[in-house]
Amino acid sequence: MQKNIAVLGSTGSIGTQTLDVVARHPERFRIVALACGSRVAETIAQALACEPEIVSCANEADVATLRAALPARVRIAHGADGLMACAVDSGADVVVAATDGAVAFDAVFAACERGIRIAVANKELIVAAGELFMAAAARSGAEIIPVDSEHSALFQCLVGEPVERIASVILTASGGPFWDWDRDRIAGAAVADALRHPTWQMGVKNTVDSASLMNKGLEVIEASRLFRLPAEKIDVLVHRTSVAHGFVVFTDGNVKAQLAPPDMRLPIGYALAYPDRLADRPHQRALAALGTSPDARAATLAFVPPDLERFPCLGLAYEALRRGGTVPAALSAANEIAVAAFVRGAIRFGEISNVVASALRGTPDEPLTLASVRAADLHARALANAEVEARLAPLTN
Amino acid sequence: MQKNIAVLGSTGSIGTQTLDVVARHPERFRIVALACGSRVAETIAQALACEPEIVSCANEADVATLRAALPARVRIAHGADGLMACAVDSGADVVVAATDGAVAFDAVFAACERGIRIAVANKELIVAAGELFMAAAARSGAEIIPVDSEHSALFQCLVGEPVERIASVILTASGGPFWDWDRDRIAGAAVADALRHPTWQMGVKNTVDSASLMNKGLEVIEASRLFRLPAEKIDVLVHRTSVAHGFVVFTDGNVKAQLAPPDMRLPIGYALAYPDRLADRPHQRALAALGTSPDARAATLAFVPPDLERFPCLGLAYEALRRGGTVPAALSAANEIAVAAFVRGAIRFGEISNVVASALRGTPDEPLTLASVRAADLHARALANAEVEARLAPLTN
Repeated sequence: MQKNIAVLGSTGSIGTQTLDVVARHPERFRIVALACGSRVAETIAQALACEPEIVSCANEADVATLRAALPARVRIAHGADGLMACAVDSGADVVVAATDGAVAFDAVFAACERGIRIAVANKELIVAAGELFMAAAARSGAEIIPVDSEHSALFQCLVGEPVERIASVILTASGGPFWDWDRDRIAGAAVADALRHPTWQMGVKNTVDSASLMNKGLEVIEASRLFRLPAEKIDVLVHRTSVAHGFVVFTDGNVKAQLAPPDMRLPIGYALAYPDRLADRPHQRALAALGTSPDARAATLAFVPPDLERFPCLGLAYEALRRGGTVPAALSAANEIAVAAFVRGAIRFGEISNVVASALRGTPDEPLTLASVRAADLHARALANAEVEARLAPLTN
Repeated sequence: MQKNIAVLGSTGSIGTQTLDVVARHPERFRIVALACGSRVAETIAQALACEPEIVSCANEADVATLRAALPARVRIAHGADGLMACAVDSGADVVVAATDGAVAFDAVFAACERGIRIAVANKELIVAAGELFMAAAARSGAEIIPVDSEHSALFQCLVGEPVERIASVILTASGGPFWDWDRDRIAGAAVADALRHPTWQMGVKNTVDSASLMNKGLEVIEASRLFRLPAEKIDVLVHRTSVAHGFVVFTDGNVKAQLAPPDMRLPIGYALAYPDRLADRPHQRALAALGTSPDARAATLAFVPPDLERFPCLGLAYEALRRGGTVPAALSAANEIAVAAFVRGAIRFGEISNVVASALRGTPDEPLTLASVRAADLHARALANAEVEARLAPLTN
């Protein structure tokens, strides 16, 4: 029984790796829809290779290009309607939600309401509106399966388990490139420094978030939404080698962990194949499985608690989670603005947390709806931009 | 829904800890039968505390003592019939198989055939006749849940998983007291040295087996039977701190592990409560869950492959597993004789493996039945005893 897969965000890192997984398992998976942003040439190449029913782009201006390049039987769409068509008209069994930001919220929500499985790599979706998506999934029976390595780890540890017996969960963090730097050095870190991630290859935004530990903070909020856990049941431990991705501590004292090499195709393949598993790496053994090369004499896994003094973004995420409502959405939006400002040289690395904290102070506590999330997102962006401007002003005088 | 529990081997280490777990969860569990060997006074105290329906002892001579001490409504039994009554006449939902040796095979097999869950702590039962028990369980629907910490770890990692997707499993070993000793020093180790186990408190036989790694070899055979895996899919890694007990490597490259403090009440509680989990340790957090004290700054888990040169018993167990049939039973029986000979000073520690190897050489390859297992057990004991005598002879001349 082949599964039909719709990929929202097909040209991004998760999108292209999803296509790679699907291409290696043609007997199991078939691409039925691809939605991209503005990288139309790449999408055409993808569509010619995997022959979807629907291809969508962000802008109407690109429709003609797609139309000219693809066979007549392929439906071409664009914008919000295009995303919606990919998610719910394509006959997808699984929607891979791999766009950035809020652009695909409505389409993914509609799929969720129809009981279609969501393989979710769109962090903002769960951080900002996870409670709404989980509630819709509970009503429709849709499975929401995380593609993030840490949340895939927790999901895998919870398969077949009584979820009401979770005492706590642990997310591991690589610690990023500034893990052993002192506070002043971190405050003045260059963009190039922030982009040197020790273990994972990711986009610029994610890599900077990883350096500030905001990445882990957003994941704490995600874990809270996906597994319905309060902030005090979610711990973070720094684990430099990124071999163990997550632990579940049960109320009976037993602990389960998931380990895997840092390769996003593993959680992607898991989210597509669940409840089965793929059989494409059948020969991994003992020490290799624990993250060392097969000829290594030993494996060592080390874990230390994070330092919230030097990495205040993680503390801000816990604060946003405790406040709830639209505050996590505001955190995520303000952080996007702050990271962009850092990357273009407008603020120092150490100011990212100040910009976010300022936006959180200006965010009112409001109940969560798809509409209030959008408003909080826009409001937080405005607050963060104003804070960035205010910080710029003294320099430009 | 309270579960009825029958404990075969109630005065041993697993038996008493089972009663402890049951006593702490009277709303979930009720003891309906206790079977002991010759420690009748202890059994009377247990029976007065937990009020079972049936109490059985090994020898007819002790029946009068039990009868006089216990209320008239308690049925008193003895010997093989008594074990059978405890296992199948007591209304047990779970039979805890915690006797040593083969004494309870028939009773446990009968329970298994009736679909009663077996919480199995009797290593010999699975090593010698696991295929027969697993086949009976498959026919009746009985669940066989291991109580051993390593096998409980694997069982927990496999809950909800497609078992045909196991690439390999890893059993961890503490390495025992001789882990960093050289071969000559190990060969001449004193009984007191062998009894200094680094992490677990166990009986004499198990502690000596742990020093020779025969314990781990028997567990390799157990894992093969419980999870239907060939020898080449079962690895052993030495992990001195005994925090991680087992890993399952899946064919998709993901790995799951189970960790727990070295306390047998955890796997016992799990085997009784499964598929639920108890909720008696709800507050364990992060670093504490990884086996360090809550105030520790870091946790480190280290793994190294075992050295089969210095620990030949582990290699003998793999050999017995590869030969199959009644050979694992012969290994287990010969090892019992060899360990007893070492403990009473008749052979050196380094000779345990020679005695076992000699018995394996004299064991024919035969198909497995409950009858052939018993014969192989007796034959291997005779061979091992003869080998011990032969080794004694030069000394006594």
